[in-house]
Amino acid sequence: MNPDNIRIVLVHTTHPGNIGGVARAMKNMGLHRLYLVAPASFPNEQANRRAVSADDLLDGAIVTDTLEEAIGDCQFVVGTSARERRIPWPLLDARQCAARVAEASAAEQVAVVFGREDRGLTNEELKQCNLHLNIPTSSEYSSLNLGMAVQIVAYELRMLRAAPEKPAVETENWDTPFASRENMERFYTHLEETLIDIDFLDPAAPRQLMSRLRRLYGRVRLDEMELNILRGILTETQKWVERDSKD
Amino acid sequence: MNPDNIRIVLVHTTHPGNIGGVARAMKNMGLHRLYLVAPASFPNEQANRRAVSADDLLDGAIVTDTLEEAIGDCQFVVGTSARERRIPWPLLDARQCAARVAEASAAEQVAVVFGREDRGLTNEELKQCNLHLNIPTSSEYSSLNLGMAVQIVAYELRMLRAAPEKPAVETENWDTPFASRENMERFYTHLEETLIDIDFLDPAAPRQLMSRLRRLYGRVRLDEMELNILRGILTETQKWVERDSKD
Repeated sequence: MNPDNIRIVLVHTTHPGNIGGVARAMKNMGLHRLYLVAPASFPNEQANRRAVSADDLLDGAIVTDTLEEAIGDCQFVVGTSARERRIPWPLLDARQCAARVAEASAAEQVAVVFGREDRGLTNEELKQCNLHLNIPTSSEYSSLNLGMAVQIVAYELRMLRAAPEKPAVETENWDTPFASRENMERFYTHLEETLIDIDFLDPAAPRQLMSRLRRLYGRVRLDEMELNILRGILTETQKWVERDSKD
Repeated sequence: MNPDNIRIVLVHTTHPGNIGGVARAMKNMGLHRLYLVAPASFPNEQANRRAVSADDLLDGAIVTDTLEEAIGDCQFVVGTSARERRIPWPLLDARQCAARVAEASAAEQVAVVFGREDRGLTNEELKQCNLHLNIPTSSEYSSLNLGMAVQIVAYELRMLRAAPEKPAVETENWDTPFASRENMERFYTHLEETLIDIDFLDPAAPRQLMSRLRRLYGRVRLDEMELNILRGILTETQKWVERDSKD
């Protein structure tokens, strides 16, 4: 993927705040090329306020009169579409679409086009696109805010870039090695001893107690420091029992 | 997945417009339970304006004074986190996290917690979470708008509903309900007391001990029977200290 080859095109945006929201969403996800087709008001202070630290994208935005000018040099154009079209068009969801955009952007100019706040892209505009993009929404309320729609597409693109670095499991980059089986067994022995010492576990009627505790600590995968903490607690506890027995 | 069991919790939101943006993002993706912890201003006209047709979510929002009240009855709590923590916590991206939330919501109360616009959740708040959620962003500009962050998580949940297959997980068909936040907090209090009683924890120099123990038990998600076992052990241990003190 080459973000330098990916542009976000907003057609006839009515609310300047949305342009700012789009700029921020783009920059958050590492996109930077913004095209504005005949915006109602631009530049505009509201846009800058909503862009926060993405105002450089607004400064660099290219304003055109028509969609044709904004996408003329593109080899691959995706148009967002909420409604069913009379003629079915190749239609993908945001995730599938991001994969196509990322792939094409390696060697080609790519545009993702978003329509008006109230009624999206016209049929004429959608016909200029290679592919239509639909973001799944609730049937009860399907009208996405423009900035949110761009955010989702930009996020899906980001996920493709992040993919190799993302943690495979939640405990990647842990600060301490996980305990070995051996050390876990020593811990279970120590735990059982202590529970007998404090009269919590009756060796004559152990029930499922140790099984449940094994399942608990096996599920969590203790790291070495956690294991040391727990064994420290057991040792301290045993001292109290010993002290008491001596009296 | 059961959206009726999933709540979005916003902690100390400053800008009412963001609350409206969140409500819209939620309803667009089929979520409807919104909790507001000590918002700066609510109800507020700006929130309603940004919510557009999601104003019913604002009407139904539950306002609490503290995070504890908002998540007390939850068995599974996810907190959004941008920064690296001193003690690494189980951390997933939005996609992985959505899978866990969806799965847990089938039978449990689940909360996804979002922090302040300027500095997110505090360490204290994050320690109340089973899991931390990080949305990948560009290193150049990583500060996501609050509404956008909720949008991405809600979108990932939506994508799972659209997907036909439900992820298989290790805690499917569990034999006992998982512990609520409230009961977990009682357990942590009891644990801390006991560790002080046995002189394992020095209140004057607590180091990271309780944080590490919270991380451990938050990671495993204790079920109610396991919690009872652990509390029983603590109670027995305390009796030995009392007995010894009397002598």
